[in-house]
Amino acid sequence: MRRTTLRDRNCSIAQCLEVTGDWWTLLIVRDVLLGIRRFDDLQDDLGISRNILARRLDHLVADGVLERRPYSEHPPRSEYVLTPKGRDLWPVLDAMRRWGDTWHAPDGPSVELVHEGCGERTTVVPTCAACGEAVTATDVRAVPGPGFDGSGPLARRDGGSP
Amino acid sequence: MRRTTLRDRNCSIAQCLEVTGDWWTLLIVRDVLLGIRRFDDLQDDLGISRNILARRLDHLVADGVLERRPYSEHPPRSEYVLTPKGRDLWPVLDAMRRWGDTWHAPDGPSVELVHEGCGERTTVVPTCAACGEAVTATDVRAVPGPGFDGSGPLARRDGGSP
Repeated sequence: MRRTTLRDRNCSIAQCLEVTGDWWTLLIVRDVLLGIRRFDDLQDDLGISRNILARRLDHLVADGVLERRPYSEHPPRSEYVLTPKGRDLWPVLDAMRRWGDTWHAPDGPSVELVHEGCGERTTVVPTCAACGEAVTATDVRAVPGPGFDGSGPLARRDGGSP
Repeated sequence: MRRTTLRDRNCSIAQCLEVTGDWWTLLIVRDVLLGIRRFDDLQDDLGISRNILARRLDHLVADGVLERRPYSEHPPRSEYVLTPKGRDLWPVLDAMRRWGDTWHAPDGPSVELVHEGCGERTTVVPTCAACGEAVTATDVRAVPGPGFDGSGPLARRDGGSP
């Protein structure tokens, strides 16, 4: 996997891509979220070669996104479960799903969500933590945060939304 | 760029990765959202080779994510602006940023958002469109939608959240 350049160390988007920026990686996380947890089942679902899958799983375990959990001693077999850090990738996958549903699903969404809390078929709306209103790209602007070190695109831009 | 396999045609996450599933592609969209719109400025910010950048920009224009807009006739020069489809990738980038801020920003977020509507420094909270409550991976479950064709991970899983 490509390593980030120095200037990208100050960008959380680049840091997320660093861990997940591989086509297969996010599809593995999607499958584990859906409950496909065993090597053979993942291989069967993804149609990926065994050595590429093994390498991606090793990376995800090393990066703290997945954990191996033994489910059989004879023969020794493990399944993969998401760590809190891995489960926290769900909003990324959900945002991707909504984008795909909007722009690349002529027959309608193949998957919908039911919110266990209210029991309704629903979708996710990004809202402002301060006022609770729905927000889109044009409603917000990016400003330097406490970790800003003066590098990166925020320092280079000539205006625009986030 | 890798093309999706047949089984992935029924998954909107895979469709989103199909267009954006390249480390550079989402960083280009990030930069254009931030207001970096010209070839040389993008090249300078991303530290990417000119021919890789040109190829990625061509892909993004062909996929309807970016549009070329001339800003000079002599010499002929264009800048890149986001289409509505491109701007709609913001929730994906925002979700990535939040994940990176949580798990890979020891000095604190380098970027924060100001919501123009309420004027507050804020962050985005994914909420349920039906009841308005905040939602995480464990609050929702995936069910077949109108475009479900019986293939893909939803058909193969043995349980779990979305």
